[in-house]
Amino acid sequence: MSKDKSVVAMFAVDAAPRIKPSNYPEPFASRMQGREKRQLGDVFGLTNFGVNLTRLPPNSVSALRHEHSKQDEFIYILQGHPTLHTNEGRTQLSPGMCAGFKAGNGNAHNLVNETSDEVFYLEIGDRVAGDEGTYPDDDLMATQVQGTWKFTHKDGTPY
Amino acid sequence: MSKDKSVVAMFAVDAAPRIKPSNYPEPFASRMQGREKRQLGDVFGLTNFGVNLTRLPPNSVSALRHEHSKQDEFIYILQGHPTLHTNEGRTQLSPGMCAGFKAGNGNAHNLVNETSDEVFYLEIGDRVAGDEGTYPDDDLMATQVQGTWKFTHKDGTPY
Repeated sequence: MSKDKSVVAMFAVDAAPRIKPSNYPEPFASRMQGREKRQLGDVFGLTNFGVNLTRLPPNSVSALRHEHSKQDEFIYILQGHPTLHTNEGRTQLSPGMCAGFKAGNGNAHNLVNETSDEVFYLEIGDRVAGDEGTYPDDDLMATQVQGTWKFTHKDGTPY
Repeated sequence: MSKDKSVVAMFAVDAAPRIKPSNYPEPFASRMQGREKRQLGDVFGLTNFGVNLTRLPPNSVSALRHEHSKQDEFIYILQGHPTLHTNEGRTQLSPGMCAGFKAGNGNAHNLVNETSDEVFYLEIGDRVAGDEGTYPDDDLMATQVQGTWKFTHKDGTPY
């Protein structure tokens, strides 16, 4: 959604969902099926960080399990009980819970909705240049080239 | 609160409130009475941006009405009905509503709890160097010197 200068405030659920469901190449993009992101920061023209309202229907995931080299991330659970997967294992979350992922700490993470109810959460990430994404469970690596993510196999060959 | 590497996730309300209620000099610090900030990003060692869970009891305010030269800000209302004051006037907010404040756009803002119920909201701001704060309603200006806010009168004389 492009910036609308006339918006002072809005209900987050009224923001339009992102049109492109995933930036991953296949076969990973299809694994994101059902996930829906509303890019709230963009509505207000923010550029230093992004804030998404993300909806995970049952059996969907937030992302491949990953960590960033430079981007800090933070999540706050609004509704439902997703499971946080990290290097340390599984942690069931509830509304009002939060977690943060410091760039470069090596702890890869994602959220999985293993319940039969919807999950809604806020996710925040900054936009430091030169970020890289690491995916311990998948043959994928991501590098930022002029603000756009480029995905390759771990040996550098393209998808 | 300092970083605790053992925390994977937590209930936001379980974070300890910030000890120093306000960084403003008097007479402005006293106007922040009642406001309570839980610095959630710090719990997880985040440094690129901050995330606070802020509680506003009745008749309290989020901050002096202000704008930042470099820091983007975003708020998400969790509970209660604060009034957002901007250059454009007053907007009553409700749970599930959000607003963003793009750095340098000249639109000064704060939240005022004009109700008889508590307000809880998330506030997010990045930490771009060289930020300045402008306060259209008060004889105050703020400049960041090596990560610490320095407050003066608008003519530059110290408080």
